[in-house]
Amino acid sequence: MDKKTKRFLLTNDDGIYARGLAALYREVSLVGDCTIVAPEREQSAVGHAITLARPLMVKKARKGGKFWGYAVEGTPADCVKIGVGELSETPFDCIVSGINRGGNVGINVIYSGTVSAATEGTILGIPSIAVSLDSHERDADYSTAARIAARLADEVVTRGFVSGFTLNVNVPDLPSRDIKGLLLTRQGTARLEETFDKRIDPRENIYYWLAGETRVPDGDDTSTDAAAVKAGYISITPLHYDLTRYSDMEMLKQRCDTIDF
Amino acid sequence: MDKKTKRFLLTNDDGIYARGLAALYREVSLVGDCTIVAPEREQSAVGHAITLARPLMVKKARKGGKFWGYAVEGTPADCVKIGVGELSETPFDCIVSGINRGGNVGINVIYSGTVSAATEGTILGIPSIAVSLDSHERDADYSTAARIAARLADEVVTRGFVSGFTLNVNVPDLPSRDIKGLLLTRQGTARLEETFDKRIDPRENIYYWLAGETRVPDGDDTSTDAAAVKAGYISITPLHYDLTRYSDMEMLKQRCDTIDF
Repeated sequence: MDKKTKRFLLTNDDGIYARGLAALYREVSLVGDCTIVAPEREQSAVGHAITLARPLMVKKARKGGKFWGYAVEGTPADCVKIGVGELSETPFDCIVSGINRGGNVGINVIYSGTVSAATEGTILGIPSIAVSLDSHERDADYSTAARIAARLADEVVTRGFVSGFTLNVNVPDLPSRDIKGLLLTRQGTARLEETFDKRIDPRENIYYWLAGETRVPDGDDTSTDAAAVKAGYISITPLHYDLTRYSDMEMLKQRCDTIDF
Repeated sequence: MDKKTKRFLLTNDDGIYARGLAALYREVSLVGDCTIVAPEREQSAVGHAITLARPLMVKKARKGGKFWGYAVEGTPADCVKIGVGELSETPFDCIVSGINRGGNVGINVIYSGTVSAATEGTILGIPSIAVSLDSHERDADYSTAARIAARLADEVVTRGFVSGFTLNVNVPDLPSRDIKGLLLTRQGTARLEETFDKRIDPRENIYYWLAGETRVPDGDDTSTDAAAVKAGYISITPLHYDLTRYSDMEMLKQRCDTIDF
Protein backbone atom coordinates (compact mmCIF):
# COMPACT_ATOMS: atom_id res chain seq x y z
CA MET A 1 0.00 0.00 0.00
CA ASP A 2 1.32 3.43 -0.92
CA LYS A 3 2.16 5.35 2.25
CA LYS A 4 0.31 8.41 1.03
CA THR A 5 -2.95 6.59 0.60
CA LYS A 6 -3.41 5.85 4.31
CA ARG A 7 -6.38 7.81 5.58
CA PHE A 8 -6.81 8.62 9.26
CA LEU A 9 -9.72 10.15 11.12
CA LEU A 10 -8.50 11.91 14.25
CA THR A 11 -10.82 12.79 17.11
CA ASN A 12 -10.77 13.24 20.88
CA ASP A 13 -12.88 14.22 23.87
CA ASP A 14 -10.86 17.18 25.11
CA GLY A 15 -12.07 19.38 22.25
CA ILE A 16 -10.77 20.32 18.80
CA TYR A 17 -8.16 22.78 20.05
CA ALA A 18 -6.67 20.49 22.71
CA ARG A 19 -2.87 20.16 22.73
CA GLY A 20 -3.05 16.37 22.73
CA LEU A 21 -4.90 16.38 19.40
CA ALA A 22 -2.41 18.83 17.87
CA ALA A 23 0.47 16.56 18.90
CA LEU A 24 -1.35 13.56 17.46
CA TYR A 25 -1.92 15.37 14.17
CA ARG A 26 1.75 16.33 13.89
CA GLU A 27 2.88 12.71 14.09
CA VAL A 28 0.09 10.87 12.29
CA SER A 29 0.23 13.27 9.33
CA LEU A 30 3.78 11.99 8.74
CA VAL A 31 2.38 8.53 7.92
CA GLY A 32 -0.83 9.43 6.08
CA ASP A 33 -3.61 11.91 5.36
CA CYS A 34 -5.49 13.09 8.43
CA THR A 35 -8.98 14.51 8.82
CA ILE A 36 -9.86 15.99 12.20
CA VAL A 37 -13.47 15.69 13.37
CA ALA A 38 -13.64 16.59 17.05
CA PRO A 39 -16.01 18.05 19.63
CA GLU A 40 -16.20 21.84 19.71
CA ARG A 41 -16.08 21.71 23.50
CA GLU A 42 -14.54 19.40 26.06
CA GLN A 43 -16.60 16.19 26.40
CA SER A 44 -14.86 14.26 29.15
CA ALA A 45 -16.80 11.52 30.94
CA VAL A 46 -19.57 11.48 28.34
CA GLY A 47 -19.22 7.72 27.93
CA HIS A 48 -20.77 6.34 24.79
CA ALA A 49 -23.34 9.10 24.45
CA ILE A 50 -24.81 9.99 21.07
CA THR A 51 -26.97 12.96 20.17
CA LEU A 52 -30.52 12.09 19.14
CA ALA A 53 -32.73 14.84 20.51
CA ARG A 54 -31.12 17.80 18.78
CA PRO A 55 -29.28 18.44 15.52
CA LEU A 56 -25.51 18.19 15.21
CA MET A 57 -23.96 21.52 14.26
CA VAL A 58 -20.75 21.09 12.28
CA LYS A 59 -18.37 24.01 11.74
CA LYS A 60 -15.09 24.31 9.90
CA ALA A 61 -12.53 25.14 12.55
CA ARG A 62 -9.44 27.17 11.66
CA LYS A 63 -6.03 27.37 13.28
CA GLY A 64 -3.21 29.73 12.31
CA GLY A 65 -5.37 31.02 9.45
CA LYS A 66 -5.81 27.54 7.90
CA PHE A 67 -8.49 24.88 7.94
CA TRP A 68 -7.85 22.66 10.93
CA GLY A 69 -10.81 20.30 11.08
CA TYR A 70 -14.53 19.86 11.65
CA ALA A 71 -15.81 21.04 15.03
CA VAL A 72 -18.94 19.16 16.07
CA GLU A 73 -21.36 20.32 18.75
CA GLY A 74 -21.68 16.80 20.06
CA THR A 75 -19.97 13.86 21.67
CA PRO A 76 -16.88 11.94 20.53
CA ALA A 77 -19.09 9.09 19.29
CA ASP A 78 -21.12 11.64 17.29
CA CYS A 79 -17.87 12.89 15.71
CA VAL A 80 -16.95 9.42 14.50
CA LYS A 81 -20.45 8.67 13.21
CA ILE A 82 -20.66 11.90 11.25
CA GLY A 83 -17.00 11.89 10.23
CA VAL A 84 -17.33 8.45 8.69
CA GLY A 85 -20.86 8.90 7.37
CA GLU A 86 -20.81 12.45 6.01
CA LEU A 87 -17.57 14.39 6.13
CA SER A 88 -15.31 12.32 3.91
CA GLU A 89 -15.66 11.15 0.32
CA THR A 90 -13.10 8.36 0.73
CA PRO A 91 -13.18 5.75 3.50
CA PHE A 92 -10.86 5.90 6.48
CA ASP A 93 -8.26 3.20 7.13
CA CYS A 94 -7.99 3.90 10.83
CA ILE A 95 -9.46 6.09 13.56
CA VAL A 96 -7.18 7.48 16.25
CA SER A 97 -8.79 9.10 19.30
CA GLY A 98 -6.70 11.23 21.60
CA ILE A 99 -4.32 12.06 22.91
CA ASN A 100 -6.35 12.27 26.07
CA ARG A 101 -5.24 14.42 28.96
CA GLY A 102 -5.16 11.78 31.71
CA GLY A 103 -5.07 7.99 31.58
CA ASN A 104 -8.09 5.89 30.64
CA VAL A 105 -7.57 2.76 32.69
CA GLY A 106 -9.60 0.48 34.94
CA ILE A 107 -13.27 1.28 35.51
CA ASN A 108 -12.63 4.76 34.11
CA VAL A 109 -12.61 3.20 30.63
CA ILE A 110 -16.40 2.92 30.61
CA TYR A 111 -16.82 6.68 31.25
CA SER A 112 -14.26 7.66 28.66
CA GLY A 113 -15.26 9.71 25.65
CA THR A 114 -11.83 9.03 24.12
CA VAL A 115 -12.38 5.28 24.26
CA SER A 116 -16.01 5.52 23.13
CA ALA A 117 -14.98 7.34 19.94
CA ALA A 118 -12.64 4.47 19.11
CA THR A 119 -15.32 1.93 20.02
CA GLU A 120 -17.71 3.66 17.63
CA GLY A 121 -15.10 3.29 14.89
CA THR A 122 -14.76 -0.41 15.68
CA ILE A 123 -18.55 -0.84 15.45
CA LEU A 124 -18.41 0.83 12.03
CA GLY A 125 -15.80 -1.73 10.95
CA ILE A 126 -12.76 0.57 10.99
CA PRO A 127 -9.58 -0.31 12.95
CA SER A 128 -9.56 2.11 15.89
CA ILE A 129 -7.14 3.20 18.59
CA ALA A 130 -7.67 5.28 21.73
CA VAL A 131 -4.54 6.94 23.12
CA SER A 132 -4.17 8.61 26.52
CA LEU A 133 -1.28 10.20 28.38
CA ASP A 134 -1.10 9.53 32.09
CA SER A 135 -0.84 13.19 33.05
CA HIS A 136 -3.35 15.88 33.95
CA GLU A 137 -0.76 18.69 33.75
CA ARG A 138 -1.73 21.63 31.55
CA ASP A 139 1.78 21.72 30.06
CA ALA A 140 2.20 17.95 29.66
CA ASP A 141 4.47 16.77 26.84
CA TYR A 142 2.39 14.75 24.34
CA SER A 143 5.18 14.21 21.81
CA THR A 144 6.27 10.72 22.91
CA ALA A 145 2.68 9.47 23.16
CA ALA A 146 1.98 10.97 19.73
CA ARG A 147 4.96 9.17 18.17
CA ILE A 148 3.81 5.89 19.68
CA ALA A 149 0.26 6.48 18.45
CA ALA A 150 1.45 7.20 14.91
CA ARG A 151 3.70 4.13 14.89
CA LEU A 152 0.86 1.91 16.07
CA ALA A 153 -1.67 3.45 13.67
CA ASP A 154 0.73 2.89 10.78
CA GLU A 155 1.27 -0.77 11.77
CA VAL A 156 -2.43 -1.36 12.28
CA VAL A 157 -3.23 -0.17 8.76
CA THR A 158 -0.27 -1.93 7.14
CA ARG A 159 -0.74 -5.28 8.85
CA GLY A 160 -4.46 -5.26 9.58
CA PHE A 161 -4.39 -7.04 12.93
CA VAL A 162 -7.07 -4.97 14.64
CA SER A 163 -10.54 -6.14 13.72
CA GLY A 164 -13.60 -6.43 15.92
CA PHE A 165 -11.90 -4.79 18.87
CA THR A 166 -10.37 -1.46 19.86
CA LEU A 167 -6.82 -0.82 21.04
CA ASN A 168 -6.79 1.18 24.26
CA VAL A 169 -3.31 2.64 24.62
CA ASN A 170 -2.08 4.40 27.76
CA VAL A 171 1.33 6.04 27.81
CA PRO A 172 3.21 6.93 31.00
CA ASP A 173 4.25 10.55 31.43
CA LEU A 174 7.97 9.86 31.07
CA PRO A 175 10.73 10.87 28.67
CA SER A 176 10.98 8.41 25.79
CA ARG A 177 14.20 6.82 27.11
CA ASP A 178 12.63 6.03 30.49
CA ILE A 179 9.67 4.11 29.06
CA LYS A 180 10.27 0.43 29.75
CA GLY A 181 8.47 -0.94 26.70
CA LEU A 182 5.06 -2.20 25.79
CA LEU A 183 2.78 -4.50 27.78
CA LEU A 184 -0.41 -6.20 26.68
CA THR A 185 -2.78 -5.72 29.61
CA ARG A 186 -6.34 -6.34 30.70
CA GLN A 187 -8.73 -3.63 31.88
CA GLY A 188 -8.20 -3.50 35.63
CA THR A 189 -10.66 -2.64 38.37
CA ALA A 190 -8.93 0.52 39.56
CA ARG A 191 -11.55 3.18 40.08
CA LEU A 192 -12.29 6.53 41.58
CA GLU A 193 -14.42 6.59 44.69
CA GLU A 194 -16.32 9.84 44.69
CA THR A 195 -17.92 11.86 47.40
CA PHE A 196 -20.47 14.57 46.82
CA ASP A 197 -20.09 18.12 48.03
CA LYS A 198 -23.56 19.35 49.03
CA ARG A 199 -24.39 23.05 48.62
CA ILE A 200 -27.39 25.36 48.78
CA ASP A 201 -28.01 27.88 46.00
CA PRO A 202 -29.25 31.47 46.60
CA ARG A 203 -32.84 30.29 46.05
CA GLU A 204 -32.34 27.52 48.65
CA ASN A 205 -32.22 24.66 46.17
CA ILE A 206 -29.88 21.81 47.01
CA TYR A 207 -27.18 20.90 44.53
CA TYR A 208 -24.16 18.63 44.54
CA TRP A 209 -20.69 18.67 43.05
CA LEU A 210 -19.03 15.36 42.30
CA ALA A 211 -15.85 15.77 44.32
CA GLY A 212 -13.36 14.24 46.72
CA GLU A 213 -12.16 11.43 44.51
CA THR A 214 -10.06 8.70 46.08
CA ARG A 215 -8.29 6.12 43.97
CA VAL A 216 -9.14 2.48 44.61
CA PRO A 217 -6.04 0.94 43.02
CA ASP A 218 -5.35 -2.45 41.46
CA GLY A 219 -2.07 -3.01 43.26
CA ASP A 220 1.19 -3.70 41.47
CA ASP A 221 0.08 -6.47 39.12
CA THR A 222 1.31 -5.21 35.75
CA SER A 223 -1.12 -7.46 33.93
CA THR A 224 -3.62 -4.62 34.48
CA ASP A 225 -3.60 -1.36 32.54
CA ALA A 226 -3.29 0.99 35.52
CA ALA A 227 -0.41 -0.88 37.14
CA ALA A 228 1.50 -1.29 33.87
CA VAL A 229 1.41 2.46 33.22
CA LYS A 230 2.38 3.20 36.81
CA ALA A 231 5.37 0.89 36.41
CA GLY A 232 6.55 2.83 33.33
CA TYR A 233 5.17 0.66 30.51
CA ILE A 234 3.01 1.58 27.56
CA SER A 235 -0.21 -0.33 28.23
CA ILE A 236 -2.16 -1.78 25.31
CA THR A 237 -5.54 -3.37 26.05
CA PRO A 238 -7.80 -4.87 23.39
CA LEU A 239 -11.39 -3.83 24.18
CA HIS A 240 -14.56 -5.18 22.68
CA TYR A 241 -18.16 -4.13 22.88
CA ASP A 242 -19.67 -7.53 23.62
CA LEU A 243 -20.38 -7.04 27.31
CA THR A 244 -21.74 -10.56 27.87
CA ARG A 245 -20.45 -12.24 31.01
CA TYR A 246 -20.10 -15.72 29.50
CA SER A 247 -18.53 -17.23 32.62
CA ASP A 248 -21.78 -16.94 34.60
CA MET A 249 -24.23 -18.06 31.92
CA GLU A 250 -24.60 -21.63 33.18
CA MET A 251 -25.04 -20.64 36.83
CA LEU A 252 -27.61 -18.03 35.84
CA LYS A 253 -29.51 -20.47 33.67
CA GLN A 254 -29.89 -22.83 36.60
CA ARG A 255 -30.97 -19.99 38.89
CA CYS A 256 -33.48 -18.62 36.43
CA ASP A 257 -34.96 -22.05 35.74
CA THR A 258 -36.09 -22.17 39.37
CA ILE A 259 -37.93 -18.83 39.17
CA ASP A 260 -41.62 -19.20 38.63
CA PHE A 261 -43.02 -16.24 36.70
CA MET B 1 -34.77 -11.79 55.51
CA ASP B 2 -37.92 -9.89 56.39
CA LYS B 3 -39.74 -8.96 53.23
CA LYS B 4 -40.24 -5.39 54.36
CA THR B 5 -36.54 -4.76 54.83
CA LYS B 6 -35.69 -5.11 51.15
CA ARG B 7 -34.58 -1.74 49.82
CA PHE B 8 -34.74 -0.89 46.13
CA LEU B 9 -33.41 2.10 44.24
CA LEU B 10 -35.45 2.66 41.09
CA THR B 11 -34.17 4.76 38.21
CA ASN B 12 -34.47 5.03 34.43
CA ASP B 13 -33.42 7.07 31.44
CA ASP B 14 -36.84 8.09 30.15
CA GLY B 15 -37.28 10.61 32.97
CA ILE B 16 -38.88 10.58 36.42
CA TYR B 17 -42.47 10.86 35.14
CA ALA B 18 -42.20 8.10 32.51
CA ARG B 19 -44.94 5.48 32.53
CA GLY B 20 -42.44 2.63 32.57
CA LEU B 21 -41.02 3.84 35.89
CA ALA B 22 -44.49 4.20 37.40
CA ALA B 23 -45.33 0.62 36.42
CA LEU B 24 -42.04 -0.57 37.89
CA TYR B 25 -42.76 1.26 41.16
CA ARG B 26 -46.22 -0.27 41.43
CA GLU B 27 -44.84 -3.82 41.29
CA VAL B 28 -41.51 -3.50 43.11
CA SER B 29 -43.14 -1.64 46.02
CA LEU B 30 -45.12 -4.86 46.66
CA VAL B 31 -41.88 -6.68 47.53
CA GLY B 32 -39.94 -3.95 49.33
CA ASP B 33 -39.30 -0.27 50.00
CA CYS B 34 -38.58 1.79 46.91
CA THR B 35 -36.73 5.07 46.49
CA ILE B 36 -36.94 6.72 43.09
CA VAL B 37 -33.94 8.73 41.89
CA ALA B 38 -34.33 9.49 38.21
CA PRO B 39 -33.39 12.07 35.60
CA GLU B 40 -35.60 15.15 35.47
CA ARG B 41 -35.60 14.91 31.68
CA GLU B 42 -35.33 12.09 29.16
CA GLN B 43 -31.72 10.90 28.85
CA SER B 44 -31.87 8.27 26.14
CA ALA B 45 -28.62 7.32 24.38
CA VAL B 46 -26.45 9.05 26.97
CA GLY B 47 -24.36 5.91 27.40
CA HIS B 48 -22.32 5.83 30.56
CA ALA B 49 -22.05 9.60 30.86
CA ILE B 50 -21.48 11.25 34.22
CA THR B 51 -21.67 14.93 35.08
CA LEU B 52 -18.36 16.48 36.10
CA ALA B 53 -18.33 19.99 34.67
CA ARG B 54 -21.45 21.32 36.38
CA PRO B 55 -23.30 20.72 39.62
CA LEU B 56 -26.09 18.17 39.97
CA MET B 57 -29.38 19.82 40.87
CA VAL B 58 -31.64 17.50 42.87
CA LYS B 59 -35.31 18.32 43.40
CA LYS B 60 -38.07 16.52 45.25
CA ALA B 61 -40.57 15.51 42.60
CA ARG B 62 -44.26 15.19 43.48
CA LYS B 63 -47.04 13.21 41.87
CA GLY B 64 -50.71 13.30 42.81
CA GLY B 65 -49.84 15.68 45.66
CA LYS B 66 -47.37 13.26 47.24
CA PHE B 67 -43.60 12.86 47.26
CA TRP B 68 -42.69 10.69 44.27
CA GLY B 69 -38.90 10.70 44.14
CA TYR B 70 -35.72 12.67 43.55
CA ALA B 71 -35.43 14.34 40.16
CA VAL B 72 -31.81 14.82 39.13
CA GLU B 73 -30.65 17.20 36.41
CA GLY B 74 -28.19 14.63 35.15
CA THR B 75 -27.66 11.23 33.59
CA PRO B 76 -28.89 7.82 34.77
CA ALA B 77 -25.38 7.00 36.05
CA ASP B 78 -25.41 10.28 38.00
CA CYS B 79 -28.73 9.25 39.57
CA VAL B 80 -27.28 6.00 40.84
CA LYS B 81 -24.08 7.60 42.12
CA ILE B 82 -25.96 10.29 44.03
CA GLY B 83 -28.82 8.03 45.07
CA VAL B 84 -26.42 5.55 46.67
CA GLY B 85 -23.96 8.13 47.96
CA GLU B 86 -26.20 10.89 49.27
CA LEU B 87 -29.94 10.38 49.14
CA SER B 88 -30.42 7.38 51.39
CA GLU B 89 -29.43 6.74 54.98
CA THR B 90 -29.68 2.96 54.63
CA PRO B 91 -27.98 0.93 51.91
CA PHE B 92 -29.89 -0.44 48.93
CA ASP B 93 -30.23 -4.19 48.34
CA CYS B 94 -30.86 -3.86 44.62
CA ILE B 95 -31.06 -1.28 41.85
CA VAL B 96 -33.70 -1.63 39.16
CA SER B 97 -33.44 0.59 36.08
CA GLY B 98 -36.38 0.92 33.75
CA ILE B 99 -38.76 0.06 32.45
CA ASN B 100 -37.28 1.44 29.29
CA ARG B 101 -39.48 2.38 26.38
CA GLY B 102 -37.89 0.22 23.66
CA GLY B 103 -35.59 -2.77 23.83
CA ASN B 104 -31.93 -2.51 24.78
CA VAL B 105 -30.37 -5.31 22.79
CA GLY B 106 -27.35 -5.86 20.56
CA ILE B 107 -24.98 -2.95 19.96
CA ASN B 108 -27.66 -0.61 21.31
CA VAL B 109 -26.72 -1.79 24.81
CA ILE B 110 -23.59 0.36 24.83
CA TYR B 111 -25.59 3.55 24.12
CA SER B 112 -28.22 2.75 26.71
CA GLY B 113 -28.73 5.02 29.69
CA THR B 114 -30.99 2.36 31.25
CA VAL B 115 -28.22 -0.23 31.16
CA SER B 116 -25.54 2.24 32.26
CA ALA B 117 -27.50 3.06 35.42
CA ALA B 118 -27.55 -0.63 36.32
CA THR B 119 -23.85 -0.95 35.42
CA GLU B 120 -23.08 1.93 37.77
CA GLY B 121 -24.91 0.05 40.53
CA THR B 122 -22.85 -3.07 39.80
CA ILE B 123 -19.63 -1.04 40.02
CA LEU B 124 -20.79 0.24 43.41
CA GLY B 125 -21.24 -3.38 44.53
CA ILE B 126 -25.05 -3.48 44.48
CA PRO B 127 -26.98 -6.19 42.55
CA SER B 128 -28.49 -4.34 39.59
CA ILE B 129 -31.04 -5.05 36.89
CA ALA B 130 -31.92 -3.14 33.71
CA VAL B 131 -35.38 -3.81 32.30
CA SER B 132 -36.70 -2.79 28.89
CA LEU B 133 -39.95 -3.37 27.04
CA ASP B 134 -39.66 -4.05 23.32
CA SER B 135 -42.14 -1.38 22.32
CA HIS B 136 -41.86 2.27 21.38
CA GLU B 137 -45.61 2.86 21.55
CA ARG B 138 -46.72 5.79 23.71
CA ASP B 139 -49.51 3.68 25.20
CA ALA B 140 -47.49 0.48 25.65
CA ASP B 141 -48.54 -1.83 28.50
CA TYR B 142 -45.68 -2.06 31.01
CA SER B 143 -47.53 -4.19 33.56
CA THR B 144 -46.19 -7.59 32.52
CA ALA B 145 -42.62 -6.34 32.26
CA ALA B 146 -43.01 -4.69 35.67
CA ARG B 147 -44.22 -7.93 37.26
CA ILE B 148 -41.26 -9.80 35.80
CA ALA B 149 -38.86 -7.10 37.01
CA ALA B 150 -40.28 -7.24 40.54
CA ARG B 151 -40.11 -11.03 40.60
CA LEU B 152 -36.49 -11.01 39.45
CA ALA B 153 -35.49 -8.20 41.83
CA ASP B 154 -37.04 -10.10 44.73
CA GLU B 155 -35.16 -13.29 43.80
CA VAL B 156 -31.89 -11.45 43.27
CA VAL B 157 -32.04 -9.97 46.78
CA THR B 158 -33.26 -13.18 48.43
CA ARG B 159 -30.78 -15.52 46.76
CA GLY B 160 -27.87 -13.17 46.01
CA PHE B 161 -26.81 -14.68 42.70
CA VAL B 162 -26.01 -11.41 40.93
CA SER B 163 -22.57 -10.14 41.86
CA GLY B 164 -20.00 -8.47 39.65
CA PHE B 165 -22.34 -8.30 36.69
CA THR B 166 -25.61 -6.68 35.66
CA LEU B 167 -28.78 -8.40 34.49
CA ASN B 168 -30.02 -6.92 31.24
CA VAL B 169 -33.65 -7.95 30.87
CA ASN B 170 -35.70 -7.39 27.72
CA VAL B 171 -39.38 -8.23 27.66
CA PRO B 172 -41.40 -8.78 24.47
CA ASP B 173 -44.47 -6.61 23.99
CA LEU B 174 -46.95 -9.46 24.40
CA PRO B 175 -49.74 -10.36 26.78
CA SER B 176 -48.41 -12.39 29.69
CA ARG B 177 -49.94 -15.67 28.39
CA ASP B 178 -48.18 -15.34 25.03
CA ILE B 179 -44.69 -14.98 26.47
CA LYS B 180 -42.86 -18.24 25.85
CA GLY B 181 -40.60 -18.15 28.89
CA LEU B 182 -37.19 -16.97 29.82
CA LEU B 183 -33.94 -17.36 27.83
CA LEU B 184 -30.40 -16.68 28.95
CA THR B 185 -28.82 -14.88 26.01
CA ARG B 186 -25.67 -13.15 24.90
CA GLN B 187 -25.48 -9.57 23.68
CA GLY B 188 -25.95 -9.85 19.94
CA THR B 189 -24.57 -7.69 17.18
CA ALA B 190 -27.87 -6.32 15.93
CA ARG B 191 -27.49 -2.61 15.35
CA LEU B 192 -28.99 0.45 13.81
CA GLU B 193 -27.35 1.78 10.70
CA GLU B 194 -27.89 5.51 10.65
CA THR B 195 -27.89 8.04 7.92
CA PHE B 196 -27.60 11.78 8.43
CA ASP B 197 -30.11 14.29 7.19
CA LYS B 198 -28.16 17.41 6.13
CA ARG B 199 -29.82 20.81 6.50
CA ILE B 200 -28.93 24.50 6.31
CA ASP B 201 -30.04 26.88 9.06
CA PRO B 202 -31.32 30.45 8.40
CA ARG B 203 -27.79 31.78 8.93
CA GLU B 204 -26.41 29.28 6.38
CA ASN B 205 -24.73 27.00 8.90
CA ILE B 206 -24.78 23.31 8.10
CA TYR B 207 -26.34 20.94 10.58
CA TYR B 208 -27.27 17.28 10.63
CA TRP B 209 -30.01 15.17 12.12
CA LEU B 210 -29.24 11.55 12.95
CA ALA B 211 -31.97 9.85 10.95
CA GLY B 212 -32.95 7.08 8.59
CA GLU B 213 -32.15 4.17 10.82
CA THR B 214 -32.05 0.70 9.31
CA ARG B 215 -31.84 -2.39 11.45
CA VAL B 216 -28.90 -4.72 10.86
CA PRO B 217 -30.35 -7.83 12.47
CA ASP B 218 -28.80 -10.90 14.09
CA GLY B 219 -31.00 -13.42 12.31
CA ASP B 220 -33.12 -15.95 14.14
CA ASP B 221 -30.54 -17.39 16.51
CA THR B 222 -32.32 -17.13 19.87
CA SER B 223 -29.01 -17.33 21.71
CA THR B 224 -28.84 -13.57 21.12
CA ASP B 225 -30.89 -11.00 23.02
CA ALA B 226 -32.59 -9.41 20.01
CA ALA B 227 -33.67 -12.69 18.42
CA ALA B 228 -34.91 -14.15 21.72
CA VAL B 229 -37.21 -11.16 22.30
CA LYS B 230 -38.38 -11.23 18.70
CA ALA B 231 -39.29 -14.92 19.16
CA GLY B 232 -41.43 -14.07 22.22
CA TYR B 233 -39.02 -14.89 25.06
CA ILE B 234 -37.92 -12.77 28.00
CA SER B 235 -34.21 -12.26 27.32
CA ILE B 236 -31.79 -12.13 30.26
CA THR B 237 -28.16 -11.27 29.52
CA PRO B 238 -25.47 -10.99 32.18
CA LEU B 239 -23.32 -7.96 31.36
CA HIS B 240 -20.00 -7.01 32.86
CA TYR B 241 -17.84 -3.93 32.64
CA ASP B 242 -14.54 -5.66 31.94
CA LEU B 243 -14.26 -4.88 28.23
CA THR B 244 -11.00 -6.80 27.73
CA ARG B 245 -10.95 -8.96 24.61
CA TYR B 246 -9.06 -11.87 26.16
CA SER B 247 -9.31 -14.07 23.06
CA ASP B 248 -6.94 -11.83 21.07
CA MET B 249 -4.35 -11.14 23.76
CA GLU B 250 -1.82 -13.72 22.54
CA MET B 251 -2.09 -12.72 18.87
CA LEU B 252 -1.71 -9.07 19.82
CA LYS B 253 1.26 -9.76 22.01
CA GLN B 254 3.06 -11.40 19.12
CA ARG B 255 2.16 -8.54 16.79
CA CYS B 256 3.24 -5.87 19.21
CA ASP B 257 6.54 -7.61 19.95
CA THR B 258 7.50 -7.06 16.31
CA ILE B 259 6.86 -3.31 16.44
CA ASP B 260 9.98 -1.28 16.97
CA PHE B 261 9.21 1.94 18.86
